[in-house]
Amino acid sequence: MTRLSAEALAGLAEVRPGDDLAGMIANAAAGAGTEIGAGDVVAVAQKVVSKAEGRLRDLREVRPSAEASDLGTRLGKDARLVQVILDESTAILRSEHGVLIVRTTHGLVCANAGVDQSNVPGEEMVALLPADPDDSARALRAALAERLGVRPAVVICDSFGRAWRLGQADVAIGCAGLAPLDDLRGGPDAEGRELTAAIDAVADQVASAAALVRSKAGREAVVIVRGLDRHVTLEDGPGAAAIIRPETEDLFT
Amino acid sequence: MTRLSAEALAGLAEVRPGDDLAGMIANAAAGAGTEIGAGDVVAVAQKVVSKAEGRLRDLREVRPSAEASDLGTRLGKDARLVQVILDESTAILRSEHGVLIVRTTHGLVCANAGVDQSNVPGEEMVALLPADPDDSARALRAALAERLGVRPAVVICDSFGRAWRLGQADVAIGCAGLAPLDDLRGGPDAEGRELTAAIDAVADQVASAAALVRSKAGREAVVIVRGLDRHVTLEDGPGAAAIIRPETEDLFT
Repeated sequence: MTRLSAEALAGLAEVRPGDDLAGMIANAAAGAGTEIGAGDVVAVAQKVVSKAEGRLRDLREVRPSAEASDLGTRLGKDARLVQVILDESTAILRSEHGVLIVRTTHGLVCANAGVDQSNVPGEEMVALLPADPDDSARALRAALAERLGVRPAVVICDSFGRAWRLGQADVAIGCAGLAPLDDLRGGPDAEGRELTAAIDAVADQVASAAALVRSKAGREAVVIVRGLDRHVTLEDGPGAAAIIRPETEDLFT
Repeated sequence: MTRLSAEALAGLAEVRPGDDLAGMIANAAAGAGTEIGAGDVVAVAQKVVSKAEGRLRDLREVRPSAEASDLGTRLGKDARLVQVILDESTAILRSEHGVLIVRTTHGLVCANAGVDQSNVPGEEMVALLPADPDDSARALRAALAERLGVRPAVVICDSFGRAWRLGQADVAIGCAGLAPLDDLRGGPDAEGRELTAAIDAVADQVASAAALVRSKAGREAVVIVRGLDRHVTLEDGPGAAAIIRPETEDLFT
């Protein structure tokens, strides 16, 4: 019998640029009596990773280009915010109905390049996605291993909208030590017939499970997910970059 | 502290057309010593719901149209299977690279209209999605309540591909007694600032959490998800139909 659990880590302090996030997670776990095991997955909201890494911009220091100003006017968005989004993007895929869907420098397709202001202190500060979220996951995993004496997997999560479905679901924008995809093709179904087209988006679904227990009102940025030992690897592995569909196979932009 | 758990229900027998699925779930739970509580969510794979409802077609009885034959040749798919997919669809959105993305009669956007052959007994039998998955969820919930004496929520899950990400993640194609979306807009973030654009896709994320514990090789079609009492409602509610983005807001087809 397979069993999964997800538990929000209580007591994480407000994260600021330069903070030792691994140390803060280890301290919060010790304080809450929460054990973090080798086969566990530590799911971390992108926002606190970005804050610790100082991936913040002050809108007061942004000079919007003509393109950003035009887009801002058309979409009803702050032109300086649009400029920051453009700086984080390689292509605009859609800009209508007040939404700005882009391909980010990482290759992610999402609204506003993941730039947002919620849970960011400071009137005019916005948080960007980490420059390389898989790198961030690997660094956090290594630092956690040093603190904890065990080497749990790390997933960095963000909430993405979906093309044909309302609402946001969390996906993995970075991961280390967790197989991002589980390729079941070629294995047998219950009838002994070959399973086709079955690749499980493990890391994204871990992010979604974690989102169900994390309060979006902040201060619950870390969730410990247990029971997925079979997907947790010693090696850091290919990271969440492996989940991004190659542009050549993209049918929808 | 919020905590979620998901546990695959062991011992569910093979489901056949006309079977009493609620009775089989209640029996399996009793046999496995698994308690199903009022605030729990019973996540059921679409395939067993379709089987119980007899939503099966025998490809030997399908006469493909010229359109289905052409598409089949072009995509390398069985023309009879393509005909079944077309019968379940209102529009073809993409047909290239060997994939057929459609809008189903329910309004879902997915590959092959959810029609597939895995875990379906019989050489040439395929399973269709339930005709009205929210109806199926409501009926299953009512029947479970009768058997169990409590009224857990029901989610009917299927694995969908995603436009810009590889792999499949489970989503809710039907639900009863679970708020499909949690609208957090207007609430405060940790800084007391208003959260914007924050609608949590609760039911889809429940489906994804359940997928992490369910073996795709069949016979683990039901997962009990606990800890989401705050999203479980006495009323059946709007169902998963409420998750479908209206066509007028669709930017990608």
